[in-house]
Amino acid sequence: MKIEKVLKEVVKKTESKILLIVMDGLGGLPNPQTGKTELESASKPNLDAYARSGACGLSIPVLPGITPGSGPAHLSLFGYDPVEHQIGRGVLEACGIGMEMTEQDIAIRGNFATIDKNHTVIDRRAGRIPTEENKKIVSVLKDKIKNIKGVEVIIQTVKEHRLAIILRGKNLSPYLSENDPQKEGLPLGKIEPLKEEARFTADVLNEFLRQVEGILSIMDTKAKTILLRGFSGLPEIEPFQKKYFLNPVCIASYPMYKGLAKLVGMDVVNGLETLDDEIKALSDVYNKYDFFYLHYKKTDSAGEDGDFNRKIAAIEEFDEKISRIKHLNFEVICITGDHSTPCLLKSHSWHPVPVVIVSKNLIPDDVETLTERACTRGILGTMKATDIMYLLLASSLKFEKFGA
Amino acid sequence: MKIEKVLKEVVKKTESKILLIVMDGLGGLPNPQTGKTELESASKPNLDAYARSGACGLSIPVLPGITPGSGPAHLSLFGYDPVEHQIGRGVLEACGIGMEMTEQDIAIRGNFATIDKNHTVIDRRAGRIPTEENKKIVSVLKDKIKNIKGVEVIIQTVKEHRLAIILRGKNLSPYLSENDPQKEGLPLGKIEPLKEEARFTADVLNEFLRQVEGILSIMDTKAKTILLRGFSGLPEIEPFQKKYFLNPVCIASYPMYKGLAKLVGMDVVNGLETLDDEIKALSDVYNKYDFFYLHYKKTDSAGEDGDFNRKIAAIEEFDEKISRIKHLNFEVICITGDHSTPCLLKSHSWHPVPVVIVSKNLIPDDVETLTERACTRGILGTMKATDIMYLLLASSLKFEKFGA
Repeated sequence: MKIEKVLKEVVKKTESKILLIVMDGLGGLPNPQTGKTELESASKPNLDAYARSGACGLSIPVLPGITPGSGPAHLSLFGYDPVEHQIGRGVLEACGIGMEMTEQDIAIRGNFATIDKNHTVIDRRAGRIPTEENKKIVSVLKDKIKNIKGVEVIIQTVKEHRLAIILRGKNLSPYLSENDPQKEGLPLGKIEPLKEEARFTADVLNEFLRQVEGILSIMDTKAKTILLRGFSGLPEIEPFQKKYFLNPVCIASYPMYKGLAKLVGMDVVNGLETLDDEIKALSDVYNKYDFFYLHYKKTDSAGEDGDFNRKIAAIEEFDEKISRIKHLNFEVICITGDHSTPCLLKSHSWHPVPVVIVSKNLIPDDVETLTERACTRGILGTMKATDIMYLLLASSLKFEKFGA
Repeated sequence: MKIEKVLKEVVKKTESKILLIVMDGLGGLPNPQTGKTELESASKPNLDAYARSGACGLSIPVLPGITPGSGPAHLSLFGYDPVEHQIGRGVLEACGIGMEMTEQDIAIRGNFATIDKNHTVIDRRAGRIPTEENKKIVSVLKDKIKNIKGVEVIIQTVKEHRLAIILRGKNLSPYLSENDPQKEGLPLGKIEPLKEEARFTADVLNEFLRQVEGILSIMDTKAKTILLRGFSGLPEIEPFQKKYFLNPVCIASYPMYKGLAKLVGMDVVNGLETLDDEIKALSDVYNKYDFFYLHYKKTDSAGEDGDFNRKIAAIEEFDEKISRIKHLNFEVICITGDHSTPCLLKSHSWHPVPVVIVSKNLIPDDVETLTERACTRGILGTMKATDIMYLLLASSLKFEKFGA
């Protein structure tokens, strides 16, 4: 992004504190029965008060028309171009279950699968074995396989037939072919290096699979091998401390968002489960940091389930509890979503997301409620999500003049 | 464009149908007498109904302040960056009169010009000879010159002193200097190769001109040679089928728009003259395609002529007749212009163009009429014209999620 060329010249460290609240999947679409979106249907006096006192707008998560996953959507909010900084699928899977990664690790997504004696793939998902069975198998594998050719192997259950694997050691490379034939009835592939530098990693994984198949062959389970894909190392991302001179913390309950926050250098408050926990944590760590990323998951989950009433209730719960942060002093508070998750679509979507930024250094507009349609007329206009971080830094007076 | 990096990962084929209606030169400027633009002056209940039920905004044809020709303006609407994909002048001229081109052809714009015995250019437009005279000369030239050095030569009248030429054969190159001295009283130039690969093409054209001058020297006309310029081959454009997995069709009456549509891989319905023809054609081919580009010319022609009342009438005619498509089911309908053509300027202009997109997967805003000023407040905001195609694909649910 062009703005990154300017950033280094202008950014400075100050005492002011920024709070970025991400209500996951915030935006929606009108309920065909009422003609109103989830935000338009909810009673949310506190969010509306922020809208009235702040500058409002809409944010395009990645690019017009493009529906983002949580990874790219959050990178955008954190001010990183999500097309330039793509996070590998393996890394996201590992993030999602809270596995820690170091710079030289390779993360891999795995599916337990059924093969016959001739190594023909019979079921690419091993009959979607229950998560409990997955956990039992993984615990056996963990016990028996710890290290291959000097490379540490870390295995963890995701759910049903899915698992994540991290390889930790020297000279590893993610440039590998998958062993998944993509269709049932075809022979299981070998892991092959796509670049010469990946030959050693391929050898490690083929030996790993040989051992896995040996162990599974005598267990009472449909899982007889693992299909491996999404090989990836940590993306090259300049951390918040270096990029923005910020000292950031993540307050979230779901592993995925904690993982994403770690990728950009945030400290993470652990052990949080509810919004109450999160709001209390914000008070607890208030003095230690200058950038606070608070993530609220329920809006997205309800949207994914297509449950209009639950999404409204999630917005209302947040609205009520957010009043508890009033004693904390933030130079800038931003409330937005990482993307929309309309109940109507039961999935993430591309629709621009409402944003409000409250700061004494911004002009409040006449938007009176935090909704998709009201924010259309906000003073911030419709902007790229990557712009938000720059507006937060500017509004908290953390930027010097560019040029003379 | 950055979005093209994402497109391949997300685009998918579905059954849903998209209708893109281009009212050429749609936007305008206020009439100094009434203070109202053409769109604000027209009675257009059907277009306003689309505005009420759809998501509205404004579209910047190419770049802020830049007035586009029809070529770049349409490429934008079709989702191609018109600065990266420039269509040569020769190709546009050939498109404009419906000449068919193949990949190895070179298209050239020509002016009949008057020269004296010493090859000094006396009149660069041969006294703007009437189109009829042009046609007569071209028919003689066609008869006598068919092939030079194995290269087929195809000549066609444009109008007055203008013509278009296509060279068809092997080893042709457009890297050539023009023979036009730009000023009268200067000697006619030679066609010179600008790259070594173009030497053969220069030889063909110089021989072509020698033969043309021989034929014209004994005819009773001011046309005594041809000034050649705009040498160009077909641009490298990924067709709709490959880029978007769409099966597109063009419904237009003017050759230029049919030609532009062909450049991006559209099928073309031929033999259409009026808007009635076009609307009937839309019904006729409805089952065969999933993307329909319908072009309406009269709004632009009236704007170019500076005829305020005729442009209003053109909008009203369209408004009345568009009601006939109501029995057809499109997942997404978009109505916009390729650029503005304000009667006040009697020419294309840079002004953002009103857009409405109607889809159950978009939030209708409270814009109640399709005009420049009303659309300013639309939920789509002011966007680049190249974004429109991506919004149409998103709204018809032809995109998967980007990243996880």
